[in-house]
Amino acid sequence: MCPETKWVTSAVVAVGEELLSGETTDTNGPWLGRKLALMGAPVVRRWVVGDDSEAIQAAVSEALAVADLVVVTGGLGPTSDDLTRPAVAEFLGLDLRADPQIVEELRTRFRARGFTESPESNLSQAVVPRGARVLKNSFGTAPGLLMEHEGHSIALLPGVPREMRGIFEEVLDQAIRDGFGDRLVPLVHRTLHTTGIAESLLGEQVGDVRAEIPPEVELAFLPGLRGVSIRISTRVRADRVQKSLDEAQAVLEPVLAPYRIGMETGDLLKAIAELLERGSLTLAIAESCTGGLISKRITDFPGSSTFFRGGVIAYADQVKTQLLGVDERVLAESGAVSETVAIQMARGVADRLNSDIGVGITGIAGPGGGTFEKPVGTVSFAVTEGARVRVSQKMFGGDREAVRERASQATLLLLYQMLADEN
Amino acid sequence: MCPETKWVTSAVVAVGEELLSGETTDTNGPWLGRKLALMGAPVVRRWVVGDDSEAIQAAVSEALAVADLVVVTGGLGPTSDDLTRPAVAEFLGLDLRADPQIVEELRTRFRARGFTESPESNLSQAVVPRGARVLKNSFGTAPGLLMEHEGHSIALLPGVPREMRGIFEEVLDQAIRDGFGDRLVPLVHRTLHTTGIAESLLGEQVGDVRAEIPPEVELAFLPGLRGVSIRISTRVRADRVQKSLDEAQAVLEPVLAPYRIGMETGDLLKAIAELLERGSLTLAIAESCTGGLISKRITDFPGSSTFFRGGVIAYADQVKTQLLGVDERVLAESGAVSETVAIQMARGVADRLNSDIGVGITGIAGPGGGTFEKPVGTVSFAVTEGARVRVSQKMFGGDREAVRERASQATLLLLYQMLADEN
Repeated sequence: MCPETKWVTSAVVAVGEELLSGETTDTNGPWLGRKLALMGAPVVRRWVVGDDSEAIQAAVSEALAVADLVVVTGGLGPTSDDLTRPAVAEFLGLDLRADPQIVEELRTRFRARGFTESPESNLSQAVVPRGARVLKNSFGTAPGLLMEHEGHSIALLPGVPREMRGIFEEVLDQAIRDGFGDRLVPLVHRTLHTTGIAESLLGEQVGDVRAEIPPEVELAFLPGLRGVSIRISTRVRADRVQKSLDEAQAVLEPVLAPYRIGMETGDLLKAIAELLERGSLTLAIAESCTGGLISKRITDFPGSSTFFRGGVIAYADQVKTQLLGVDERVLAESGAVSETVAIQMARGVADRLNSDIGVGITGIAGPGGGTFEKPVGTVSFAVTEGARVRVSQKMFGGDREAVRERASQATLLLLYQMLADEN
Repeated sequence: MCPETKWVTSAVVAVGEELLSGETTDTNGPWLGRKLALMGAPVVRRWVVGDDSEAIQAAVSEALAVADLVVVTGGLGPTSDDLTRPAVAEFLGLDLRADPQIVEELRTRFRARGFTESPESNLSQAVVPRGARVLKNSFGTAPGLLMEHEGHSIALLPGVPREMRGIFEEVLDQAIRDGFGDRLVPLVHRTLHTTGIAESLLGEQVGDVRAEIPPEVELAFLPGLRGVSIRISTRVRADRVQKSLDEAQAVLEPVLAPYRIGMETGDLLKAIAELLERGSLTLAIAESCTGGLISKRITDFPGSSTFFRGGVIAYADQVKTQLLGVDERVLAESGAVSETVAIQMARGVADRLNSDIGVGITGIAGPGGGTFEKPVGTVSFAVTEGARVRVSQKMFGGDREAVRERASQATLLLLYQMLADEN
């Protein structure tokens, strides 16, 4: 046997007609590919099959021939086209029985929603193969299942991505680590997040120092609407891993420094929250073109109620003048998209909502509304704290969604910079 | 043989390590799934394999066992990890030879770019299995190939999506039609969108009328955080298709009616926008727990400025009382999450922003803030138009993100229902 066979391998089977017909793109496969590779159990083959017992069984059989761990996603729901559980149980020769604990949990869940009886179809989700370990689903009704078969492990997970990811992260991840132990030689990686620089420019600057980075460390650029991340990864003996990654990071840090925020997590909001809490500062936001997106992003953050007082979405010009006190003359002369209006919105919302910091943003998200002087994508945004002001006007590319995402990121970055300078 | 075996079936094999590791999401599979289903050669199984001859051959062998047409994507490039061509030729027992015409085309292409010699690695792309038909690639250097094998067809296409799609649309589409003729019977489908009902309950209600739906029509349930869609599909002679789907839809409509909005597109916001525009009504929104999400969703809709005046994000209780006029006593007695507060928020924001309709929402998105009486997930929401009021309080399951998504959908649904009743 070649030495690689000591390492753990995985295979993934995705179940669902909608994946074959192309109505849905399978994102579970790539997600599991990344997770399992990092864990040291890389995926070596993947199958996509329809809602068809024979096909599910054929794929599981072929998967067991090439992998130590087989993860099946989809087909665990309560309807008649959900066949994964009985198909796999039959293939492995396991009886199905109702698990009393799952039945009870389903009943409780439905009672909490005001139903007196659980629908019979949901109780089908409580039927599990004998000997299977039940993996708790905190995000939905169908639990995951983990079975052993002739030295292989087989996990069944729901197809809904948030449920699949939830079960994997909360339970299955640890179960795989417990099961395979030190046979897992993981690919270890770190992600260095940046924002405010284009991928091509970042690539050039990193290219200049590539030769100084240890050769066993690989680099990947991951671009997104909110910034570009650089992933550094290596798969070497455990005692070498941290040293290799530390050396690579030490070379990259000086190059990336101007574009690094929320260094550990890449989470701009967390970095902002920390600065606000450190200064005991409160925040209010006035949004026009982003229409609530920035406030929504801030309140995605669970602890935001300690510093976020609220906001005003001033979509109509009248709301800008009447509720935020934007000067009608300025609005008429410079138009709704101007730095002056952004500043007045920021000051107005801080005043009305009684906050220390105000943020104002106004722009043209498109597709309509652009002019020759102010084309679609033009956005003005300001951050104020009493007399202090930071303001900027930019042109963002892309469609309505991209303009709004990029504008929200640039505004949060301006807020972060103002807070960081003061601390 | 069952009658289905007369119909043409396809299988897809995607080759590439980056697809297994999750660095790239395979979009070729879903694209081919849609194209081939519409053509009448639906994909019945899909494989994703690495750059590994043995795995490619195993997948092609398994694919030939279940499908008339096998499409292999990827692994046709000029580098040493591109193994599809030799692996498939060896499996089919075909010699490889350099195709003089491709060699000439590659030379011409390289000369046009100013090179006097073609790189040797690129000439490997001119090596094709004997008897294979060469499919011209207008978008890159690697041509596609089409082979016959014991009554099956095998097509090899590049993995780069634009090249794969280009060859399919310019050449392969017609070649498949010529090859399979009237054995191609297309699958036609319609999607009926619902919101406000759980998948299991919907499944039961639909189950009750299943027997009345023509047997040639198949049903699939597609659940998401914003609702459940039902896909009805059939694969019969062209002159029967519309009749079968019409009959199925006629049976389903009465069952689904209470949960159907934006009948054609499933787009709740579009349906709301139409009703607001028809009644020349304006809208303003006061959000607490959703923190801007509902306003963000409304302003995702490009035409929203005609009816949306704006909103107030009343995250702090003081903003609820001072800016929206919520009664301090009510807040103290019934707490921030109550139907009375939701109504006062809706009335307050309509008043302050001078709109016809007001929406108010307040709740506990979690993870903290829950109590015994009002656990995490409790949300009150109201819609008002002058003296008219609709109000509701619900418990939503899931994490912070799920609670906020579900609450926003339920609130928009309440708004839709109030508008629909008045028209």
